[in-house]
Amino acid sequence: MDAKDFDHWVATSLTAFEAVLDGLVPGDAPAGLGEAMRYAVLGGGKRLRPLLVLASCATVGGNAFAAMRAACAVELIHAYSLVHDDMPCMDDDVLRRGKPTTHVAFGEAQAMLAGDAMQALAFDVLTPDEGIAPALQARLCALLARSAGHDGMAGGQAIDLASVGKPLDECTLRDMHRRKTGVLLQASVMMGAACGPASAQATKSLSDYGAALGLAFQVVDDILDVTQDSAVLGKTAGKDQDANKPTYVSVLGLDAARALAQQLRAEARAALAASGLADTSHLGLLADSVVERDN
Amino acid sequence: MDAKDFDHWVATSLTAFEAVLDGLVPGDAPAGLGEAMRYAVLGGGKRLRPLLVLASCATVGGNAFAAMRAACAVELIHAYSLVHDDMPCMDDDVLRRGKPTTHVAFGEAQAMLAGDAMQALAFDVLTPDEGIAPALQARLCALLARSAGHDGMAGGQAIDLASVGKPLDECTLRDMHRRKTGVLLQASVMMGAACGPASAQATKSLSDYGAALGLAFQVVDDILDVTQDSAVLGKTAGKDQDANKPTYVSVLGLDAARALAQQLRAEARAALAASGLADTSHLGLLADSVVERDN
Repeated sequence: MDAKDFDHWVATSLTAFEAVLDGLVPGDAPAGLGEAMRYAVLGGGKRLRPLLVLASCATVGGNAFAAMRAACAVELIHAYSLVHDDMPCMDDDVLRRGKPTTHVAFGEAQAMLAGDAMQALAFDVLTPDEGIAPALQARLCALLARSAGHDGMAGGQAIDLASVGKPLDECTLRDMHRRKTGVLLQASVMMGAACGPASAQATKSLSDYGAALGLAFQVVDDILDVTQDSAVLGKTAGKDQDANKPTYVSVLGLDAARALAQQLRAEARAALAASGLADTSHLGLLADSVVERDN
Repeated sequence: MDAKDFDHWVATSLTAFEAVLDGLVPGDAPAGLGEAMRYAVLGGGKRLRPLLVLASCATVGGNAFAAMRAACAVELIHAYSLVHDDMPCMDDDVLRRGKPTTHVAFGEAQAMLAGDAMQALAFDVLTPDEGIAPALQARLCALLARSAGHDGMAGGQAIDLASVGKPLDECTLRDMHRRKTGVLLQASVMMGAACGPASAQATKSLSDYGAALGLAFQVVDDILDVTQDSAVLGKTAGKDQDANKPTYVSVLGLDAARALAQQLRAEARAALAASGLADTSHLGLLADSVVERDN
């Protein structure tokens, strides 16, 4: 697989993904709620989580319809978390993906409701009347619920909130980021894998891959927060530093953070090599893209 | 079934329910998140939705373990919606179930996160590793997701937000309340019914029962908002009137609203009578309790 093939796969996958997601997020939900939901989730973002679901499913030869639904579900969870995170009582941010944040565009109440409805919609799209075997629906709901809740994303955000201005050691920082970002990225990989038959070894390896990639993503996020400007990021740069939030850069320094990102990329690739799966090239290149990205 | 037997069933059911819920909502979720979640959902509330799930499941002879999990899930959704509803950007209420609202006690950010985590936990408790057949897990997740989202509760709240100070006809008011409150009450009945074998006729009748009961609940809520004081309600009375929100009382007048509540009770009981189910007495008495309650 060369870079051109990978780029083609990404472009094709994203075109299909955006079309399916567009069809699933209702424009006609009452009283402007649908517009706010669509604003928050359509037409923006790197779509890393959906690509992980789709690549992971393809690697195990799984149910492509189920994987596409899972890709939409995990992106809905991610997007709702950004809407709530950006609100004044949380990070109070006005810029996201180069656009005004949802509460700036629609008001705080509608933004909170849109986030709430997006979380419900995530589980709705995982449980269609047909196309996904009920046992797989249940498995996907379980994986998503656990990664989104108190043991995952929401728990990580609570630690994040409580840690502003406090020195954290690397171990606590890692736990916060594992929950806040890593668990949902890892769940994306595991949801894709659940869509097909995967050996215990393959499942374990994909889980290790997802864990390393999830942490790498956050380390790189912390690096970009201090090395890039807002125009490139599409969100407010220097935000964590200004808020006196502990980051990998503040705890380790920039050079050590960069070295850690490379080490985690190597761990992710080593996990794929140990999986026994025939073709993990897309997953490997996704790990590269996470570490090499500039926004 | 006399009133004493019913009271005994309610007391026994609630004792079991509170114990299970207590075990499912984590106290040790990070950075105070677990405390906020427990504050919001434990030790308060009428628990009408759980009782509907349990009574409906018993009526069809269903899986009691699954029904107890479903009862917890639906109460978590209800409780999270109250937490978010009470926040300053929504109803800005400081009193709930006779206690300070969650954001007053824990801050807005933690309250929003607790609500988010409670919604995720609802789907988590529906998808345990054992005790509920995967097909039933999927069915319960589907029913809950649809009733909580844009077509249900969240959509109703969006209409509610948009309708402050505007005259609504009874038809629009009914649609708002059906979504905001009715759909989740109806889903409680349907989730209980899904836990066992139910004929098409029984399922249809229980759905009709749930729809009538759901609407009756809201009509009575609107009546109590103007006839009771805050101490009896455990929440701020006269709130809807003060906010110039359309209610059944403002649209129909108090006497007609009371007559409507009685009519809906009769419809609920008629649906039970048409169900072909052997013993629907608990469901019938729950409908009575909804209409006759004073808080």
